[in-house]
This record gives sequence, structure tokens and C-alpha cells, in this order.
Amino acid sequence: MTAQKILLLVLDGISDRPCASLGGLTPLQAANTPNLDRFATEGITGIMDTIAPGIRPGSDTAHLSLLGYPPERYYTGRGPLEAEGSGIHMEPGMIGFRCNFATVDENSLITDRRAGRIHDTAALSAAIREGVDLSAYEVGFRFESGAGHRAALAFVGDLLGDRVTSNDPKKEGAEPLPVKPIGDAPADEKTAAVCNEFIRQSREILFDHPLNIERLEQGLPPANLLLIRGAGRMGHFEPFEERYDLSGSVISAATLISGIGMVVGLEHIPVPGTTGSVDSDLPAKVAATLRELERKDFVLLNIKGADEAGHDGKPEQKRDFIEVIDAALEPFAALDDTILVICGDHSTPCSVKDHSADPVPLVIRGEGVRTDRNWAFDEISCAEGGINRIRGLDLMPIVLDLINKAHKYGA
Amino acid sequence: MTAQKILLLVLDGISDRPCASLGGLTPLQAANTPNLDRFATEGITGIMDTIAPGIRPGSDTAHLSLLGYPPERYYTGRGPLEAEGSGIHMEPGMIGFRCNFATVDENSLITDRRAGRIHDTAALSAAIREGVDLSAYEVGFRFESGAGHRAALAFVGDLLGDRVTSNDPKKEGAEPLPVKPIGDAPADEKTAAVCNEFIRQSREILFDHPLNIERLEQGLPPANLLLIRGAGRMGHFEPFEERYDLSGSVISAATLISGIGMVVGLEHIPVPGTTGSVDSDLPAKVAATLRELERKDFVLLNIKGADEAGHDGKPEQKRDFIEVIDAALEPFAALDDTILVICGDHSTPCSVKDHSADPVPLVIRGEGVRTDRNWAFDEISCAEGGINRIRGLDLMPIVLDLINKAHKYGA
Repeated sequence: MTAQKILLLVLDGISDRPCASLGGLTPLQAANTPNLDRFATEGITGIMDTIAPGIRPGSDTAHLSLLGYPPERYYTGRGPLEAEGSGIHMEPGMIGFRCNFATVDENSLITDRRAGRIHDTAALSAAIREGVDLSAYEVGFRFESGAGHRAALAFVGDLLGDRVTSNDPKKEGAEPLPVKPIGDAPADEKTAAVCNEFIRQSREILFDHPLNIERLEQGLPPANLLLIRGAGRMGHFEPFEERYDLSGSVISAATLISGIGMVVGLEHIPVPGTTGSVDSDLPAKVAATLRELERKDFVLLNIKGADEAGHDGKPEQKRDFIEVIDAALEPFAALDDTILVICGDHSTPCSVKDHSADPVPLVIRGEGVRTDRNWAFDEISCAEGGINRIRGLDLMPIVLDLINKAHKYGA
Repeated sequence: MTAQKILLLVLDGISDRPCASLGGLTPLQAANTPNLDRFATEGITGIMDTIAPGIRPGSDTAHLSLLGYPPERYYTGRGPLEAEGSGIHMEPGMIGFRCNFATVDENSLITDRRAGRIHDTAALSAAIREGVDLSAYEVGFRFESGAGHRAALAFVGDLLGDRVTSNDPKKEGAEPLPVKPIGDAPADEKTAAVCNEFIRQSREILFDHPLNIERLEQGLPPANLLLIRGAGRMGHFEPFEERYDLSGSVISAATLISGIGMVVGLEHIPVPGTTGSVDSDLPAKVAATLRELERKDFVLLNIKGADEAGHDGKPEQKRDFIEVIDAALEPFAALDDTILVICGDHSTPCSVKDHSADPVPLVIRGEGVRTDRNWAFDEISCAEGGINRIRGLDLMPIVLDLINKAHKYGA
């Protein structure tokens, strides 16, 4: 018998370096992880450079690579991916941006780059959609609220470039910057002009908006400016189902990851109660994953909280959240007919507080998969596993072969 | 904490194949190497194809690869690198050659390809610089003595090619060959003509030189002919400091290796008493390396004697010299703030008496580096290490990530 389905479980930023406060162990080594270790025991393990040895991956480039889309061809900046994940359907050629609602004072100085971490901006976004008019530039736009203070923006129109700077000075107490073209291409000059006009008009709309007047009365910072960044041109992605002959879904609380899933044609399955943080409702995600595997061939499940603990530099918190993740994975032990792949997208060492290029651990477990002698899922043990060391782009071909969907090359 | 500096220690030709006279061990396995084993215990180990699996590297191509300069793009023959290492500052476009002082008899037959291993040729080189005139070809030249019977030559001028043969018949008792263009490109024809003219004029100068008359009187073979080979065009090397944002030095007794360091912009630090052979003053090299690490971000240290024993096919001598090397490395145990990388550039099996493509052992040791269960630095043990198997070009990205100088690809 050969398995028919694939579950790709990405434990975002799970891997690390030795931590002094954990006695020289990594959080994944220090954590008690009976389920992950069981999968390692039953499956084959290894280490993986999601891009290439020594390349520090972003979550976006890493996930593209894991899904088999070479990032050097498909990655055009975070903006289009976040926009798709925020509910803007991105068509090839559209220019996407990530946005923050921020606060400026009467002197035009930014006093809060996140507008007091405002968390319901739907009314503001609706006002922007209704009020901003870019027809003088023959440009249409889409604008959607994201989680918290976040939002996404996209422009539609001819002759628009994507090489422009951000208006975000990256610090408080400074004025917002003018958006500028990078270089002197007319298309980039046009996009920069459109950006500045969009920022100007949206700022006028936000300034007088009842929600902001209400916030001022409550002593809260008003969301009266948009900071936009991450400009990128939406590319053409060969749909996942055509590329692999597999139907698929993505389950992720992070708009960047769900956006990546959606641009390649995976169906995004929202799961109430999931936050992308250490308080996320993981059992709900796992249950949703099992439901999706009933009706789809492929599910990408991203669990993000460990990455956050790494960015915060908290080894004990990371270890503890890894144990929470592990407990939630118990239902996957009953999977049959499914190749279970568990890996990281990149390491997020607590000592670095950012992504590093250290390879991630990997286990592949399911019907017909070779095994090895390793019985532990961690960075050090998996380096002794039977997969040895592969790259992210190797993963889909290997897994397709395990479900007998690889094409023979030659005779 | 993250280390800030990098020491790349290349043990030239250290790795080998099983040797019958060592009971089936390699010289590195047979040697008692407490310091190397300590670094393996404290660090992470692996094996490395300095170019690619099955490719037999030269020391030159291997070092370019280890420094992150793809040899297929940057390697243009040994001549320009030897010339730079011999003190000729090579500018892009110059044509470089390696030279031997040799002996011809009255019948124009080569009687000694190394002129009795002559070792002070400074006066001969000065006479050549003063006497040879290539202005009829509108070509300038540089000529410098190297170690022993070696020297280096470079041409400067327009329309010069680098695809020419050598005048070295590679055996004694034969006449020197005419230098010929490879193919029929006019630039190569011009270089061949310039070579032949240079050889002719220099031979006349050497024939009558007082030093050679003196040698004849002493019964020594005169250095009365130049054999030139290894023609190559000096390329443009992106400076190391710009490429990696690291200042650096190279410490090597071999002009080829110091030349490679210098062409990429490392400062060459000469160390008195070092010979590139088994009688080299290794403690002086190690002390100089520690001094350089005080003022630079990166040091390439090459130790060459084990390679020589491999070329000579002497397993016991190779084993013994490895023990001498190991003892000299003891001061590196005190390094902190530095990522210590120890590897070979290629294997030089005693059974082959030349370089082979067998992968080299590798250890990376320093703050934050993951460890593995391997505690021995040798070809067999390192193959079980946590790095698994990488390529030479992977090394610099990995090490840059470990000192937090890698750029994130994506977000």
C-alpha cells in the first residue's frame, strides 16, 4: 500500500542553537516531546537547508521553497503575499504592500508606529476604500484590514513598478518619509507618486474619522496615518493542483503564510481561536487539519508560536511552547494513508532573536517510508538521520514520490 | 553572545585513504591528535567536497571555493595567482605565468628542469628585468624570483591572449618547446610570440651572467633558461572586505595560497622561518595568526607539510607531521569570540601521490555553534558528524551566519 495524501506541518522557527540557560541544549532538545519523538522513531529523519546552506531564510522564501516554488523565481517581496493573505485577491501584475496603521501628532511626527496596537480597523479600512480616489493616475486599488494594526494595499493599473521605498522612518519621533522610486524607471516613479497620493488622501480621511475622534476622547492614539512597505509585483504562480495533481489547503494564523498558500492556489481554511502566538488554539488547528485531509490531498499546516519565543530570546518559553505543540499533535499519530512531514521553515535562535541559517530538523513518516535509527526529533539527533541533509526544494519531489505521483525520468 | 571573527585553518592535503602500512588507518586516524580531537568534540563536524563530489581539486581552485569565489568564474590558471604571491601586483587583464629556472647544455637539451634547485636567483631576476625589452610588441612585463628555482612572470599590454602552451617539455634530455597559441586567435598568437621573444632574450642574459659563470666553476648547473607555464589572464575579484564586510589576512608559506589571498584582497602576513614544508616553524605561524585576529575579522591560515608527505607517498611521515601540526594548534583552544574552522583543501592520498576527490574532514567550533556526538577529527569520524556533507562554496555563507553577518533572504 502507498499513502495517498500529504500533511506538511511547518513548526515555524522551532529550531535553535545551544542555550546556556538550558544547560547547553536547544529548546527542542530540552522539551519533553513524546509525539514528535514517536514520529521520529516511526519515520526517517534528517536536516534541511530550506533555501541553501548558510542562507538565512525568511518565512516567506522558506515556505515557497518547501512548496516547491523556487524563491529566486517566485519571490517578489512580502507585500503581494501579505495582501493575498489579508483577503485581497492578487492578480499577476498587481503591486502589493504591507501597511501599519500609525499615529502622527499635530507636528506630523510619528508618535506610535502601531497606533496603540489598535485591533479593530474595519471601519477605517471601509472609509479608505470609499474615500480614496486614484483615478487621476488611472490606478485602482484594494485595501483590507489585517490582524491588529496591520493592513494590506494593492494597486491595479498599467505601467506600475515595484521598486519604491517605504514611508516608514522605522522609528518614532520622526516624520513619515516620502515614498521614492529606487532608480529612475518611469514605472517606479509612477508607483511612488501613487503611493504618496494614497498616503495623503487616506491620512485626510483618517484624521476626521469618528473612530479616531472617539479614540482621542478615550486617550488612545488615533490611527491617522498609514505606513506602507514591502512593495512587490504579484507574479504568476503555476497553480499547485496543476503542478502536482494534488488538491490542497493551508491552515495558518499568519497572513503571510496563508497568503503564500493562497497565491499558489491552496484553499485557506480559517480556524477560529488561532492567533499565530503562544496562546493559539492548537487543538482546533489540528482538528481542522484532520477534517481537511478527509477532502483534500495536501494540507500545509503552520504553527507559529515557537518562532515568536525565539524572536523574543526566551529559551524557557520556547521549550514550554514546544511541549504545548507536541501535546496538540497527538491526533496525527492515528493518520494512515498520509505522509506526515514535520519540519521547520528556518531556525530562530534565542541568542540571535532572528532567523538564522542553521538547518532545520525534518521527519517524514508514513506508509512505505524507510526508517532510520534516530528516535528523537531535535536539531542534533536528526543530523544523524537517514535523510542526511537536503534542501527545501528537494522536499516536494521526495514526498510526491512517496505517494507515487512522481514522473519517471527516462525508461 | 555571538562570535565576531573567523579563523579558517586549511590543513593542506591532510586527508588520505586507508594506508596498509598504518594497519588500514589513514594518517589522520593513526596520528595522536589531542587538539584536533578536542576541537571536534567541542564543535560540529562533517565532510566537505571543496569543489563538488568526485572533482579532484587543485589547491588553488579549492582555496578559491573555500573563500566563496566560485572557481568556474574566478579561476583562470595558476599563473596569475603565483605571480601575485611572488610579489607582482596583478591588475585585471594582465597575463601571468609560473616559471622555473632550468639548465640547458650546449646542444640546447634541458639537463635540469630546476637548475640544481638553485635558491638565490635575485640577481638573475634583476638582470632579466633590466635587460629584456618587449617594446617591439608594445608589451610591458614584470618578473620576480619566487622560492628556490621558482619565479613568476606577467605581461601587460593590449590584445594579449592567455591560451598558449608551455615551453616545458616536462622531461630532461629534451629541447625546450616553442610556445604556441592554442587555436588561432590573434591575441593568443601575439602572446605566444611575446613568450618566445621573452624566453630568447632572457636566455641570452642568463647565459653570460656572472652568477652562472660562477656556478659552472663550482660544478653547479647554471640557471640559463626559463621554463614558463600556467598562463592565465588576471580576472576581476570582488574584494573580500566588500563581499563580506570583513577585514582579513592570509598566512601561508606557499606563494600560490598567499597569491590567492592577495588577489581577493587579504593582507599577506609573511612569517619568518616558515617553509611550506615539514620543517616549517608552525608555532611562529600560530602566534602570527593570533596576532592578526587581534586586528582583523578574518584570517586564512594554510599549513602545508602534510600535503608534501602525501605527494611523496610517505604515510608514516604524514602521520608524524600531523602530530607536529596538532601540537602547534594548542593555543587555538583559548580562542573565544572566534569561529574556528579547520578543514583540508583536498585529499592527498599517499597511495595516489597526488590530489584526490575524496572529501575532506571539517570542524566548525565556536560560540553558539551546534555540536554533535563526534569527538575525533579524521576522515571517517567526521563523516558521521552533524554537518553531514557540504561543498566548499557553502562554507563562507555558513560561517557568516554564525557571526551574524548573513543577510536574510525574504522576511
